[in-house]
Amino acid sequence: MLEALKKEVLEANLLLPGHGLVTFTWGNVSGIDRQGGLVVIKPSGVEYERLKAEDMAVIDIDTGWQVEGALKPSSDTATHLVLYRTFPNIGGVVHTHSRWATVYAQAGLGIPALGTTHGDYFYGEIPCTRRMTPEEIDGDPGHYELETGNVIAETFADKNEDDIPAVVVYSHGPFTWGTNAGNAVHNAVVLEELAFMAWHSQMMNPDIKPMQRELLNKHYFRKNGSNSYYGQK
Amino acid sequence: MLEALKKEVLEANLLLPGHGLVTFTWGNVSGIDRQGGLVVIKPSGVEYERLKAEDMAVIDIDTGWQVEGALKPSSDTATHLVLYRTFPNIGGVVHTHSRWATVYAQAGLGIPALGTTHGDYFYGEIPCTRRMTPEEIDGDPGHYELETGNVIAETFADKNEDDIPAVVVYSHGPFTWGTNAGNAVHNAVVLEELAFMAWHSQMMNPDIKPMQRELLNKHYFRKNGSNSYYGQK
Amino acid sequence: MLEALKKEVLEANLLLPGHGLVTFTWGNVSGIDRQGGLVVIKPSGVEYERLKAEDMAVIDIDTGWQVEGALKPSSDTATHLVLYRTFPNIGGVVHTHSRWATVYAQAGLGIPALGTTHGDYFYGEIPCTRRMTPEEIDGDPGHYELETGNVIAETFADKNEDDIPAVVVYSHGPFTWGTNAGNAVHNAVVLEELAFMAWHSQMMNPDIKPMQRELLNKHYFRKNGSNSYYGQK
Amino acid sequence: MLEALKKEVLEANLLLPGHGLVTFTWGNVSGIDRQGGLVVIKPSGVEYERLKAEDMAVIDIDTGWQVEGALKPSSDTATHLVLYRTFPNIGGVVHTHSRWATVYAQAGLGIPALGTTHGDYFYGEIPCTRRMTPEEIDGDPGHYELETGNVIAETFADKNEDDIPAVVVYSHGPFTWGTNAGNAVHNAVVLEELAFMAWHSQMMNPDIKPMQRELLNKHYFRKNGSNSYYGQK
Repeated sequence: MLEALKKEVLEANLLLPGHGLVTFTWGNVSGIDRQGGLVVIKPSGVEYERLKAEDMAVIDIDTGWQVEGALKPSSDTATHLVLYRTFPNIGGVVHTHSRWATVYAQAGLGIPALGTTHGDYFYGEIPCTRRMTPEEIDGDPGHYELETGNVIAETFADKNEDDIPAVVVYSHGPFTWGTNAGNAVHNAVVLEELAFMAWHSQMMNPDIKPMQRELLNKHYFRKNGSNSYYGQK
Repeated sequence: MLEALKKEVLEANLLLPGHGLVTFTWGNVSGIDRQGGLVVIKPSGVEYERLKAEDMAVIDIDTGWQVEGALKPSSDTATHLVLYRTFPNIGGVVHTHSRWATVYAQAGLGIPALGTTHGDYFYGEIPCTRRMTPEEIDGDPGHYELETGNVIAETFADKNEDDIPAVVVYSHGPFTWGTNAGNAVHNAVVLEELAFMAWHSQMMNPDIKPMQRELLNKHYFRKNGSNSYYGQK
Repeated sequence: MLEALKKEVLEANLLLPGHGLVTFTWGNVSGIDRQGGLVVIKPSGVEYERLKAEDMAVIDIDTGWQVEGALKPSSDTATHLVLYRTFPNIGGVVHTHSRWATVYAQAGLGIPALGTTHGDYFYGEIPCTRRMTPEEIDGDPGHYELETGNVIAETFADKNEDDIPAVVVYSHGPFTWGTNAGNAVHNAVVLEELAFMAWHSQMMNPDIKPMQRELLNKHYFRKNGSNSYYGQK
Repeated sequence: MLEALKKEVLEANLLLPGHGLVTFTWGNVSGIDRQGGLVVIKPSGVEYERLKAEDMAVIDIDTGWQVEGALKPSSDTATHLVLYRTFPNIGGVVHTHSRWATVYAQAGLGIPALGTTHGDYFYGEIPCTRRMTPEEIDGDPGHYELETGNVIAETFADKNEDDIPAVVVYSHGPFTWGTNAGNAVHNAVVLEELAFMAWHSQMMNPDIKPMQRELLNKHYFRKNGSNSYYGQK
């Protein structure tokens, strides 16, 4: 089942080492079949060079049960499921420990919108979640991962996840999402570039302020939405 | 028409990923036929690996109208046109979001001439434009990009663009130019090296001053102008 | 003798340049045959591309005598031997001058546990040894290297080396270990990533504190030990 | 003439891009035939991929005259000649604008001996020259380059160039030397690593002191000189 989606999710997973976003097996990508309510995700701890489409795990979005696949799904599956349930328009989710985004996660800071590169993709600061509570962290396998999803959802209670498709989880690392698995990886690559440039801009100029609202509007809406004029139609 | 220039501009565009100056489609190169008053520029949002010479857009420098090419030109075309109109000797223009130059743009700072590597190519600080006004940013497609060119031109009102062939636009990123498209890319590569070295020099020694005027003169004029003695004749 | 172990140690040594952990010959890996009390280690100063399995030196763990191999063993052999004698469960040892871990060694600082990437592999701060005394440093060949091992052992007197399989030696560089030679290299790669991320996190947020104990517990024990649920069984 | 030396110098020049020490043509290597008093050096401004052994320029060390080669020698030739005249034991010289060493040159600072990686190759701080005077900088072609050599020689008046085979020239960049052209490149690679690690160590710990004298002695003399015990004999 879902052979096309499995292939798409496999290829998106393989983009992670291709873009230098992962060391060893430190990352995973999933995609969703909204009609069937099924999520396809990388198996846990398998090296990218050995991954095959048929290794992908298929998970029911409502029950969290594995409905296909011989291998255990990513240990972060419960987080992916919360994101799919909470963000109705997204089609793919990525989690990595990519270096620069993780630096912000470890520093407990969001990535401010400091320039047009940021504004081309993200409509404002990429937030950092709050610190999780001991109750959220402890517990049976899957509980912590579920709560990781919940703290991301909480962070976006007053934000539009379609306009800011990324977050850094406090003391942990980034999650990104997108219209499908490949687009979520695209956003993960952009996030890493933005974090690199923001870090160096902030170190050089500690008093730096976010870019002007007008410039953010111009760049975000010239590339996104119904009035965009970037790229070919 | 302009087959040779299209090929030259294509090849210059392909140098951008080759030198690590771009992520995805974040950059564009143009070249000009001064006699015909025609600018050849990369189409908007097309991936470098799929670019062909015949994809290049041909634009009338005076009217800004597209006179050839099936694809829409770069969304930054209006900026390129202002530079060609304002700087009479230049033959090529490059825009990227290359990492280190963009860090300076985001910090709102020029790149000071701190050493002979800088002096070999740029006769003084590479300036950062002023912040653009809401009126310059808002408006119909093309207005903002035109005003981006104007703010660069304003920055060079008291500078010689032939001796300092680069700028960083406030909260945005670098533009470079040169005698032709390939030379403009060459300057974009040099700019990135200079920004890398300046950033680290300034972080290590916050009280750093620009290099001596005599040393800047020596290096700039041993490599540029009629009395140069670097390289083969 | 020990042909399989020699091959394993050779391959582990070749992973060092593959992962960008060494310049020239600045690193060495060993493995141990616990039953025979024999350590297999890279010869001193030989380039990785010329290494062969039969070049590996075989050393008696108790006497330190070379029992096989035409080439002199690594000058750091005495340090490796102390680690094998002191840490009964380890099967491989790695020494490099990898860039980011060496930065911490030179700064005389341990690498704090700032995030879950750290917690997935190391159960707490990766310590820096104390500065060695002139008496420990001076003396005949092998004395200093033996004392380097001793100062590492001293550093772990109140720590569990199986849960924190790495150290940085003051003004020197990192040693890592693991269940075998390949696992010790794996830990050396992880250490380098952690040092990179910790450095940037600490520079950005000088008041940063180690991650919560609960989060460290969760990540360390979901990936290590009898209750782990990461990866395939 | 000097076919073997030309080939050696060519190969040493090609190591520069191989080790990432140069952008475009920003570096040059020379070697000397002490018996004949002839220096073989890269031609000026020629791209590395197009270099051939017969392109190498042969220069008389005493007169500075070119005795063979159709192409003009490196514009830095006069500096190389001073180094060969002043440092009687050296057989090769390298000049680059490698990133990290140039950062120190631009900051006007020497690279302190902060760890054993440094001590394995350089017996103490790698110095930065003083700022050159306008009289040293101005003048006919070759005068400035000669004075650049003189200011390096002055810097080593109270140092042993064989034990510290590198310098950074104020506001300029590094020169290294060695027993032959290849060894000088080896030292240029090491210098770059040391500058990288020193920069990050100093940024993290501004109060950092040079390593202990005993540790410097141990590492320098276990790898260099008649009592060394590193590597194979």
